[in-house]
Amino acid sequence: MADQPQEFDVLVLGGGSAGYAAALRSVQHGLTVGLVEKSKLGGTCLHTGCIPTKAYLHAAELADEAKESEKYGVKMTFEGIDMAKVKEYKDGIVAGKHKGLTGLLKMRKVQVIEGEGKLVSQDAVEVGGTRYRAKNIVLATGSTSKTMGLPLSGKIITSTEALELERTPKSAIVLGGGVIGCEFASAWTSYGTEVTIIEGLPTLVPNEDPSIIKQLERSFKKRGIKSNLGTFFKSVEETSDGVKVTLEDGKTFEAEICLIAVGRGPVTEGLGFEEQGITLDRGFVITDERLHTGVGNIYAIGDIVPGLQLAHRGYQQGIFVAEEIVGNNPVIVEDINIPKVTFCEPEIMSVGYTQPKAEEQFGKDQVEITEYNLAGNGKSSILGTGGIIKMVGVKGGPIVGVHGIGTRIGEQIGEAQLIVNWEAYPEDVATLVHAHPTQNEALGEAAMALFGHPLHG
Amino acid sequence: MADQPQEFDVLVLGGGSAGYAAALRSVQHGLTVGLVEKSKLGGTCLHTGCIPTKAYLHAAELADEAKESEKYGVKMTFEGIDMAKVKEYKDGIVAGKHKGLTGLLKMRKVQVIEGEGKLVSQDAVEVGGTRYRAKNIVLATGSTSKTMGLPLSGKIITSTEALELERTPKSAIVLGGGVIGCEFASAWTSYGTEVTIIEGLPTLVPNEDPSIIKQLERSFKKRGIKSNLGTFFKSVEETSDGVKVTLEDGKTFEAEICLIAVGRGPVTEGLGFEEQGITLDRGFVITDERLHTGVGNIYAIGDIVPGLQLAHRGYQQGIFVAEEIVGNNPVIVEDINIPKVTFCEPEIMSVGYTQPKAEEQFGKDQVEITEYNLAGNGKSSILGTGGIIKMVGVKGGPIVGVHGIGTRIGEQIGEAQLIVNWEAYPEDVATLVHAHPTQNEALGEAAMALFGHPLHG
Repeated sequence: MADQPQEFDVLVLGGGSAGYAAALRSVQHGLTVGLVEKSKLGGTCLHTGCIPTKAYLHAAELADEAKESEKYGVKMTFEGIDMAKVKEYKDGIVAGKHKGLTGLLKMRKVQVIEGEGKLVSQDAVEVGGTRYRAKNIVLATGSTSKTMGLPLSGKIITSTEALELERTPKSAIVLGGGVIGCEFASAWTSYGTEVTIIEGLPTLVPNEDPSIIKQLERSFKKRGIKSNLGTFFKSVEETSDGVKVTLEDGKTFEAEICLIAVGRGPVTEGLGFEEQGITLDRGFVITDERLHTGVGNIYAIGDIVPGLQLAHRGYQQGIFVAEEIVGNNPVIVEDINIPKVTFCEPEIMSVGYTQPKAEEQFGKDQVEITEYNLAGNGKSSILGTGGIIKMVGVKGGPIVGVHGIGTRIGEQIGEAQLIVNWEAYPEDVATLVHAHPTQNEALGEAAMALFGHPLHG
Repeated sequence: MADQPQEFDVLVLGGGSAGYAAALRSVQHGLTVGLVEKSKLGGTCLHTGCIPTKAYLHAAELADEAKESEKYGVKMTFEGIDMAKVKEYKDGIVAGKHKGLTGLLKMRKVQVIEGEGKLVSQDAVEVGGTRYRAKNIVLATGSTSKTMGLPLSGKIITSTEALELERTPKSAIVLGGGVIGCEFASAWTSYGTEVTIIEGLPTLVPNEDPSIIKQLERSFKKRGIKSNLGTFFKSVEETSDGVKVTLEDGKTFEAEICLIAVGRGPVTEGLGFEEQGITLDRGFVITDERLHTGVGNIYAIGDIVPGLQLAHRGYQQGIFVAEEIVGNNPVIVEDINIPKVTFCEPEIMSVGYTQPKAEEQFGKDQVEITEYNLAGNGKSSILGTGGIIKMVGVKGGPIVGVHGIGTRIGEQIGEAQLIVNWEAYPEDVATLVHAHPTQNEALGEAAMALFGHPLHG
């Protein structure tokens, strides 16, 4: 490594979605860039998060379709899930993307430094005994599954281990009814596992709009997914043939395995951040709204910054910081305007304000909503899915929230996020033409309804 | 019928997508409305067009997935297509929508008049011997499959008969490589039929962007769909065990059946239009840009008006005319801004200018394009699809065309049509956040590339 440069315009700590985006955009502006990664380029999203879980969920979708195919006139016999093959498929996708990313970083002349980086001064990072100096440092060390002090084992696992299982568990308890919990509950159910979700809050996916939550809970129930809501768990222990979860009210649940899906915590401990004067709050790095830490030329991006822990938010923040460093004064995208998709069956998409949040922000009498039922949408009927599109608007003003639930509805997030980010009025959308027969038409119909002229239903 | 009103504010001839939209929007404005339909409410789109073909294509998708499922770890045995069941599924969807539409029109107090309507004066229509007068008349009589004088039979059929087949043909010749031809070629191939497309023009889907055409032709070839392009057919005749198609160059093709998919012609003959002074051109009704025929208060909408023959265009025109009648001065949506989806495998979506049309309109040196390869898109890899998103922009100006091809890519039309209709600049899209991992991200990446900053690939 002796002949490699040890000084950079930008040094990025962490090669996940946030970090590699910052690195790539920085080199596009002619800056020299070092990228420190202790494990694998691509980070959580590529190796143990977004990508592998969605591969699992696609296999789950195929299994569901196989079970239902007869009513569509397609004769087939479903014989089960071959987890080794699912894993092979998943690993193949991950390996391909990993190779692509590694090649891209090399081609763009980002110097990748293997090892764990530690901040040792306001302009230097040490990796494996070597000191690297930089005019700007970007912290992007990411997050890891929270375990709440529970003892991980072969039967008590996080999403990382769940993705490596070589078998389909007969039964599973999922601790946590948020995005990760619901995605695994959904996939496993499709695979044939008996799933029980334990969620301390009163609902599943508590960050979503209440109408969406209601639909999801109904759909999950119909799919046979059990849930116990509103009581937190007290303990999780291994038994001779599985796990036992005890809730605070004394109720117990038993299953073959237990997935801990109680959220993700920032990876910032022992990396020298506080020693250099950076403010941490429960492990998260506190920055100003332009992602500056207030120390030297040090920025922080991605899951270590409080807010939505989403790969595309990190990715956007990476680009943002690179633009900021070269003085391009990029536009801030508020968390509220960041699109979210939960890839369970049925899928959920949302961007902007939920109805309660809009009422809080704009006043209850200033908010109007519309719920378009997918029963009126041709393509959804063809796919055999119910669901809704819900739009939240300010009276006489823009659409400030778009939410949807239904099979494959996640892809509607594209139009939804443009609507919300561009502060479109209902009539701006209602007067345009939506292609028939697509699920996308439902957005046009919802906008028409919000505009006061629903044509269908 | 004697006690039913025989005078209306608006009388609509034809209860397809265009006609029923005009009727529904008119009653919303407090107008009295009569709707004349000679066959079934919902028209071509619902009964023999969009909806049933997409049901067929969904069964085809399931069949394709079944054949491929092993590589995703889902064990199943594909045993074939049960056409009677496919038909039952398709008929169920159609019947449900038909019932919904009939109920909706009744609830909204649109008076449906059964029978064939004939224009008998500038303000009257006769149906089955009864004369109905109206302040405004809207012609929406739709289209029918062109047969080019070929003798229909059990073996020489149009899309209408194709949807009623109780069997999967062993082999088929599809005359015409446009939208309808490609959709049937695609579905039948998935069902196991050996398909040959005969297209007189030099390419399949000739209205699409050349890059999309190239991709489709390659994909179809890979799927085993044969095609003979650039030579028109001369004759089609029945043989003892099938059909024989002879081309103008003497080449012949034989198959079990022949689907005539050479386009759709307007239904305007013998309906009294010309007698009342309305201008027809090759059967199409000529209107001004506000869809007025220039005669009395008579408007024309949908497939009888020259331009794109699409259900959602008719639907929008129906709403447009209703708004026009009440003096709301609605905004004209040009055909170029109407979204289009072809639901073959791989799907095609497009809105706005193709590259050649943009170069013609804005000058070759004023146009810039970007092609984003779906190989770089995580969700597409998970779905196992290739393809592209192509954006066409004016230098220093807006994005004027968005085109895409790939499995399930049709739903991206939502964001695409907002981009084009709102005349977004690449940076308006590139600076926003696209949700990961969706196919929708590819639009964000394409916009970034057009903006001059592709991050991936």
